[in-house]
Amino acid sequence: MFEQASHSLKMRDVRITDGFWGKMVQTVCEKMLPYQWDVLNDQAEDAPPSGCIRNFKIAAGLQTGDFSGMVFQDSDLAKWIEAAAYSLSVHPDEEMERRIDEAIEYVAKAQQQDGYLDTYFTIKAPEMRWTDLRDCHELYCAGHMMEAAVAYYEVTGKRTLLDVMLRTARHIMQVIGPEEGKIHGYPGHPEIELALMRMYQATGEEDLLRLARYFVDERGKSPNFFVEEEARRGTEGHFPQNISLGLSYFQSHLPVREQKTMEGHSVRALYLLCGMIDVAVHDMDEELLQACYALFDNATQKRMYVTGGVGSTSIGEAFTADYDLPNDIAYAETCASVALVFAAQRLLHVHADGRIADIMETALYNTCLAGMAQDARHFFYVNPLEVVPEVCEHNPDHRHVLPERPAWYGCACCPPNLARLICSLGSYAYSMDETTLYLHLYISGSAQFEMQGKKCSVSVETWYPYDGRIRICPRGGKYRLGLHLPGWCKSYCLKINGEEAEALCRSGYLLVERTWQEDDTVELILDLAPRRIYANPMVVHDTDCVAIASGPLVYCAEEEDHGKALHLIHLPRQSCLVRTEKEMPGLGRFVGIEADALTAALPVPDALLYGDCPVAYDRPVRLQLIPYYLWANRGKGEMRVWLHEGEK
Amino acid sequence: MFEQASHSLKMRDVRITDGFWGKMVQTVCEKMLPYQWDVLNDQAEDAPPSGCIRNFKIAAGLQTGDFSGMVFQDSDLAKWIEAAAYSLSVHPDEEMERRIDEAIEYVAKAQQQDGYLDTYFTIKAPEMRWTDLRDCHELYCAGHMMEAAVAYYEVTGKRTLLDVMLRTARHIMQVIGPEEGKIHGYPGHPEIELALMRMYQATGEEDLLRLARYFVDERGKSPNFFVEEEARRGTEGHFPQNISLGLSYFQSHLPVREQKTMEGHSVRALYLLCGMIDVAVHDMDEELLQACYALFDNATQKRMYVTGGVGSTSIGEAFTADYDLPNDIAYAETCASVALVFAAQRLLHVHADGRIADIMETALYNTCLAGMAQDARHFFYVNPLEVVPEVCEHNPDHRHVLPERPAWYGCACCPPNLARLICSLGSYAYSMDETTLYLHLYISGSAQFEMQGKKCSVSVETWYPYDGRIRICPRGGKYRLGLHLPGWCKSYCLKINGEEAEALCRSGYLLVERTWQEDDTVELILDLAPRRIYANPMVVHDTDCVAIASGPLVYCAEEEDHGKALHLIHLPRQSCLVRTEKEMPGLGRFVGIEADALTAALPVPDALLYGDCPVAYDRPVRLQLIPYYLWANRGKGEMRVWLHEGEK
Repeated sequence: MFEQASHSLKMRDVRITDGFWGKMVQTVCEKMLPYQWDVLNDQAEDAPPSGCIRNFKIAAGLQTGDFSGMVFQDSDLAKWIEAAAYSLSVHPDEEMERRIDEAIEYVAKAQQQDGYLDTYFTIKAPEMRWTDLRDCHELYCAGHMMEAAVAYYEVTGKRTLLDVMLRTARHIMQVIGPEEGKIHGYPGHPEIELALMRMYQATGEEDLLRLARYFVDERGKSPNFFVEEEARRGTEGHFPQNISLGLSYFQSHLPVREQKTMEGHSVRALYLLCGMIDVAVHDMDEELLQACYALFDNATQKRMYVTGGVGSTSIGEAFTADYDLPNDIAYAETCASVALVFAAQRLLHVHADGRIADIMETALYNTCLAGMAQDARHFFYVNPLEVVPEVCEHNPDHRHVLPERPAWYGCACCPPNLARLICSLGSYAYSMDETTLYLHLYISGSAQFEMQGKKCSVSVETWYPYDGRIRICPRGGKYRLGLHLPGWCKSYCLKINGEEAEALCRSGYLLVERTWQEDDTVELILDLAPRRIYANPMVVHDTDCVAIASGPLVYCAEEEDHGKALHLIHLPRQSCLVRTEKEMPGLGRFVGIEADALTAALPVPDALLYGDCPVAYDRPVRLQLIPYYLWANRGKGEMRVWLHEGEK
Repeated sequence: MFEQASHSLKMRDVRITDGFWGKMVQTVCEKMLPYQWDVLNDQAEDAPPSGCIRNFKIAAGLQTGDFSGMVFQDSDLAKWIEAAAYSLSVHPDEEMERRIDEAIEYVAKAQQQDGYLDTYFTIKAPEMRWTDLRDCHELYCAGHMMEAAVAYYEVTGKRTLLDVMLRTARHIMQVIGPEEGKIHGYPGHPEIELALMRMYQATGEEDLLRLARYFVDERGKSPNFFVEEEARRGTEGHFPQNISLGLSYFQSHLPVREQKTMEGHSVRALYLLCGMIDVAVHDMDEELLQACYALFDNATQKRMYVTGGVGSTSIGEAFTADYDLPNDIAYAETCASVALVFAAQRLLHVHADGRIADIMETALYNTCLAGMAQDARHFFYVNPLEVVPEVCEHNPDHRHVLPERPAWYGCACCPPNLARLICSLGSYAYSMDETTLYLHLYISGSAQFEMQGKKCSVSVETWYPYDGRIRICPRGGKYRLGLHLPGWCKSYCLKINGEEAEALCRSGYLLVERTWQEDDTVELILDLAPRRIYANPMVVHDTDCVAIASGPLVYCAEEEDHGKALHLIHLPRQSCLVRTEKEMPGLGRFVGIEADALTAALPVPDALLYGDCPVAYDRPVRLQLIPYYLWANRGKGEMRVWLHEGEK
């Protein structure tokens, strides 16, 4: 298995220009990251003070005051630094780099003599350090700052933060580990496992690898560390409410190699999976890798919304049961889909499998993107597939489901997570091994890489996923292109230098090999004909319903285009689905889907609640669907992904 | 409006024998009430200790120890006394009467010198009396004990408990009321309003009426009493979590005459409505009565399940929004449907309106009865319309939904509430005015009453609701029978002494008047042909679904008869529905409904989660429906009321 492993290109060697993503990346770099910087500095007008940078300044002794925010507030800055670092590679900006350096200065100064870094405990309770690995996020925050350190080092070559985080890692190794006298524990919120592996890849320090491996393998062993830790600490923890969620909330109900289903908090579960994959790949640990595939398959083949959302319940933001996918009270956190993209990327590096790239696309183009408003200043954490605003407002079972994106939350996990994903898309779009450059995502731009000692490049031009035509110019010598042929694609056309060509398709990738000359052009034309998606019959909530998609984009209906009671719309099975390019206020330029459908007259206000007449779906209506990621950009209203399918 | 008012017969003048209810009443009297007595005395083997009677003994100084249970634990005994009192009228039993007298002795001894009665505060915090009307249930518990006192007095003529509760009422009047120096408040949990009206009707003491009226009219006035009370008390109350539920949870968001929609905790809302109706009727207060009708209509025409359940959310056990009726996470508390029967009874006394009797029947024969297992020892508090056990176990949004009835809860509100309803059914079945005896429910048995000075009687023989033939023998002179003609009944036949007869139908009641002779017989034959019920199109959760009913009974499908995946069953619109008498272990003798339907093959375990093939509903299946109230008497499994309707 491991002999086919590929790796990402260097971040700074990928450009994203024009097309679908160019504007998105620009928006994130020019609007979202500066706005987030203001939020972190308590200077955004429309967001409550974060206190995040202030916490670092206080811990650094630069300022006095109390800690503000959640126990994991530090991670907001870490994710921002990581995202901002990536942004420099796609959108160089001196002012941004200055901000990052300023942030790093605070982080470095907030680090304690012994390498410890966590402003919550430094400010509030230094004597309580490392007493509550389950709930207090010290390892989680360290993990995010390690990722930031690696990102900034890789993009700029500057290693101040990397050195800070190496000191933190060494401090952790002195406190936690298998040796006698150390804590035999692991984090309540996984993240540091994958972060240590990134630090190891950047520095080659074997200790980092060993600690990551220890965290992965120690987890869930019996007797359970969290149970013993709580017994030592007592139940008056910082987040005592977590107790009732059970060990599976923390994925510590079983050793990770024995876990067969995705359980508990979805972001925790998926970050852990990323760390597990990293360790399995490095160690060529076939058993661990099989456990990873089993968990990824369970998450994506039994517990994932058609939009790539995961985590069906708001209670614990967690996975529930196979095929339990309620659309109206879904949680489907933005961060969980971001984490699903992370996991898919890692598995694609093990083996380029088109089905995994399909899942990466689904999560990316639907739930991840839906997390951000078109103004890049409002964000969804929860991504339902069906919304009726009146019900959200009056039924507390829906209290987590917002019909409009708010500006910023106190727990601001999702916005910076989205930012770091979007600014580093290049590392998801491409990977390479000794002979092949894989294109997993089609993104307008270019990539530089070295293949068997030669400098090579590809450039890509496309308005994918709105246009199926992808024009690729490979340069630099003999190598193979591995072009992701999405599973949804029923017909495609491959042209080399304008001539139709055939290519071997292996595991969902078209393999095109030659010695590339100047002016060589590869064109891949994917048929984006709208299609009907049906859920597995075991999904109770989607019975007799259909979802519409074009390419990787799942579509939805909004009240703005149809009036109220979207659930009454029935799309006849034989109705023709038509793609039409549109430009609309709030939505910009996009491709919609239209179809003839039927609906029912709204009942009079005093109509019987129960009667003996079936509803007559006899009113023609022109269904106007927009991409799911664009919903809720035109004010508050109903939204629905799964439409009733009808006969006529 | 008020000139048509009728009233119940005296409890001891109604007999319930044989038929559908005879066995039910017998089970409640012979099994459930003795079992509940054991529970209240901490002597039931399969239930946790209630501590309820022990609390009274401790408060009485007969025993030492701490208070046990909920702050409203006293009400469990009150409801038991009330139910047991009724049971004596339908099922005389010296041992039961001895138990009641014993219980009343403890209550009397637990009463304080000044008339105060509440074991929680007497034992735990006498100095805190009356400081938290919102959350601490002192008035609620007093109300239930007042109802018990009236019931026992009416059935036996014994007035010990009535005198105790008159002293409590006088104590309350000294503490609460409009006069200066008193608390200008009202209960967080309504109940005492209707109880005071019952005490007033039993004793004629005007002060009781005045206090009930005060509680009704003071509620929701601005400035809000609960807000001011909390400010006085601070937020460290006994149930501080209630704060976040808002004033509508307590129906104190508006003066009651201005409330147009049913809001908040459903049992609170419906008990309040009963008290409001009682006051309106006594005072001939047209404005208040109109407010009552508006609330009842909103509850039953916009917010009621087809099974007569109300309260769509478990969070606050509350009403949510019009047409928001999720089947799988429904709350639909048994107590709320019992309270709906109480409210319907009161409105039927204002005006015999068949539509209100229909709602009473729906609630009674479906959600109320479903609250109790056939063994009368296991109870549902929550009555969902769709259950998949695996989802209940793994998705915490369903944590309140149990697939099997448990034996007894710590908060044991529903079982005694059911017991008091079933043992007093006679007061719901009949009412009379100066010229007419109304039969609202058809229950085998007999009733004595005095019409214009003459002793009269009717006897009823029927196996309704399983058999549509109702044989009535009226005796005693000239009067009119008002026979409820249910709204669902599409055809009926009325026979007098064997001859088909015609009768005026007014507001859903057939009016049959004559001077009744010995041997006169009236037969009403209602067509119980199974029917299809469709929800108002605004009910999102029932789109394209159908519920099946026969008479007042709503039916459901169970896994036991069909295997898993009940949601896949499609009942073609033209399938013939057939009633068949059955006898089954766990269910006893009943009438089922069968029909030819279609289902789909279960997918293979690794089938795609999303694909491009619609599900083929091509497997014939014989649908076997049982009455909803009988579900979950044959072990754990799926259940479903709303079935997908299909073409074929």
